[in-house]
Amino acid sequence: MAKQEVRSYRGMRDFLPEQMRRRDYVFRVLEEVFKNHGFEKIETPAIELWEVLSGKYGEEEKLIYKFSDRKGREVGLRYDLTVPLARVVAQHRGEIVFPFKRYQMERVWRADRPQKGRYREFYQCDVDIVGTASMLADAEVITVIYEALIRLNFDNFVIRINNRKLITALHKKIGEGSELEIARAMDKLDKKGKEGVREELTSRGISRNGAETVLAAMEVKDLEEARKFYGDHQGIKELEELFSYIKEYGIPEKYYEYDPSLARGLDYYTGPIFETVVKEPRIGSITGGGRYDRLIGIFSGTEIPATGTSLGVERIIAVMEELGMFPEEIEPPAHVLICHFPETRKKAMAMASEFRRKGIRADIYSGEKGLRAQLGYASDRKIPFVIIVGEEIKEGKLVIKNLKEKTQETLPVEEAILRIKIFTQNGNK
Amino acid sequence: MAKQEVRSYRGMRDFLPEQMRRRDYVFRVLEEVFKNHGFEKIETPAIELWEVLSGKYGEEEKLIYKFSDRKGREVGLRYDLTVPLARVVAQHRGEIVFPFKRYQMERVWRADRPQKGRYREFYQCDVDIVGTASMLADAEVITVIYEALIRLNFDNFVIRINNRKLITALHKKIGEGSELEIARAMDKLDKKGKEGVREELTSRGISRNGAETVLAAMEVKDLEEARKFYGDHQGIKELEELFSYIKEYGIPEKYYEYDPSLARGLDYYTGPIFETVVKEPRIGSITGGGRYDRLIGIFSGTEIPATGTSLGVERIIAVMEELGMFPEEIEPPAHVLICHFPETRKKAMAMASEFRRKGIRADIYSGEKGLRAQLGYASDRKIPFVIIVGEEIKEGKLVIKNLKEKTQETLPVEEAILRIKIFTQNGNK
Repeated sequence: MAKQEVRSYRGMRDFLPEQMRRRDYVFRVLEEVFKNHGFEKIETPAIELWEVLSGKYGEEEKLIYKFSDRKGREVGLRYDLTVPLARVVAQHRGEIVFPFKRYQMERVWRADRPQKGRYREFYQCDVDIVGTASMLADAEVITVIYEALIRLNFDNFVIRINNRKLITALHKKIGEGSELEIARAMDKLDKKGKEGVREELTSRGISRNGAETVLAAMEVKDLEEARKFYGDHQGIKELEELFSYIKEYGIPEKYYEYDPSLARGLDYYTGPIFETVVKEPRIGSITGGGRYDRLIGIFSGTEIPATGTSLGVERIIAVMEELGMFPEEIEPPAHVLICHFPETRKKAMAMASEFRRKGIRADIYSGEKGLRAQLGYASDRKIPFVIIVGEEIKEGKLVIKNLKEKTQETLPVEEAILRIKIFTQNGNK
Repeated sequence: MAKQEVRSYRGMRDFLPEQMRRRDYVFRVLEEVFKNHGFEKIETPAIELWEVLSGKYGEEEKLIYKFSDRKGREVGLRYDLTVPLARVVAQHRGEIVFPFKRYQMERVWRADRPQKGRYREFYQCDVDIVGTASMLADAEVITVIYEALIRLNFDNFVIRINNRKLITALHKKIGEGSELEIARAMDKLDKKGKEGVREELTSRGISRNGAETVLAAMEVKDLEEARKFYGDHQGIKELEELFSYIKEYGIPEKYYEYDPSLARGLDYYTGPIFETVVKEPRIGSITGGGRYDRLIGIFSGTEIPATGTSLGVERIIAVMEELGMFPEEIEPPAHVLICHFPETRKKAMAMASEFRRKGIRADIYSGEKGLRAQLGYASDRKIPFVIIVGEEIKEGKLVIKNLKEKTQETLPVEEAILRIKIFTQNGNK
């Protein structure tokens, strides 16, 4: 047979079983948290009509995989989950109950140059509440972030919170440049410090005085001081309300803070904005979001308030890998491997059925190699128990091996089943 | 705001929460069965290089969404999950433990003309064992089909089994036409009856005698008779072994049968073939598969035996919808909605946290409308319980409404929690 050299398309990944289990663990924990808060899942197509995608991503539009179908219809692979959400809300408005609490965990595609940690295909995980302007919704989203990270065993994180309305106010105060220019300059703080922000502002033609005002605004200590700086502004009132709700939800204070330097330099935010940073490793934010009251309505012809967050699930997985945060055995590929000899093969199959009926994940070796190969297979797949169906089966007995503890016993069938059943119930799902 | 008319791309679907829950129910049950048998999940990219896809699908190649990326690299959206599996086995051979028991439940895309029940984007669900020629593997795959359908509450189904080697033998016997032509003619039986098969064969230039032999082969009653028809043929020996294993696995006889008329007219099968039909509604097969020892190796330069099945998950869902086979309440979007008045809003949030901590899926109304709107929201979303945080909370009490039974009580917080907790544990996950 001629060998054809093959590989996957650059920037896209295969997920083999071991990695897949870790990824699924993260997805399952997140999903459990979302459901626990009354959010519901939706899915949308990978392909959207070009007119849905075009004009929504500014400069980044060139990163959309765009092509024509056989009839010449222009289409593109979805770039994020927010524009599809806006389309869904417009197209299915009559079928949706508002406030619409939805989550979506799906792939998106970017025709980008692949680099370490930057892929052309990756999962996004978005949680949004559409159809209410209440700060209750923003507080609910922040609670979900907190719960999700805690359940994944993150501890060293802070959810930074600000209000885009205060950046609008700041822009008005200094009367120079554009709001977006100021927001983007503020975003430089993390990487380039104060000097970087000052340079960015002056390079945009903002005066020295203006720049100093922005820097002063970024050094405001708490909401009380912010109230002095901005006066009785709507942005302050919203944050006060939001923080009082977060407190009621019982999030410990060390996990969130008012951060006057947070800007999130995208043009669609209209209210509270929030992102989560971990202190170690330095990887940037692992969640990002905020209120965006004017985006969801673009296809509906009416303004529809919305707030939400992306959980950077690929970054979260990367951090968890780096810090070894996965539980030691998330879920073995099977609890037990049933091994057999030619003369006990049929009996082994009956045993496999028996174990499975008892709720035990029982693999049976599907090849016809000898015991040595079968044991190797169990150990390569990290299956914790092995059952050998040998001649003892005539007396109703099985050999049971615990591969981790390297023990071996001969037990009656029922007892062997019980032994493994207990193991599975001891948190070793 | 100007309204932009939008819709999704034809032939692709949005899945809104209610439908999504039913789909997820099916996916979860299937996944549970696969895991219970020691199969492991993998995922592969949506986009494959064109050289991986081309030349694999015959005439159907034109149904692949094909395009070029910005660098002019020709790629396509994956058309099925089998060719990607072959690529994965070649590309990651050193990382895979064989026999490789893998399942994959992902979308595939077809640039087809959309029709009722035929989509341009749909899920495939494949279960395969790669790397062993043993009939143990085929029996294991058939057991998975049986278990999966039983767990989904199917009863009126039969898994038909034949061996492609017997069609090779039949072809040899009559010495006319090609094996594939004979197989495809046999496939006409379901839709066009014997006459249809005869016509198809003679139109392919097969003699009257030859056609009668094929028809006689299709009327063989059981394996014993088949042994007389074909003699001590390898195809017969495999089926005898396979049936003896299926019996050991404990599958009741009414759910499977030797069907000499089953042909599965694809060119890559090399051994046992199997498909499942339901008697009602007439929808064709809901699973299809078999042994294909020469396909997986195409990229590896060596023959790698494999067997497996597709579960037609979209058809399975369609049948379940049509026959009303979903459990009445699969999983409500939340167990309880927490309702509030402006003066009890904060207390309501603390309550929501309390309920959630106890493992209850508690939604809190995220808007600021009155109680009437909040109750409407609960009933529209089919949330079974409502908790009203009213002035009784001063005495530590809550109003609890059971929306289905239309009852209302005022209970201490702990008792209200217990009431809902009991409901969730009564099979109402």
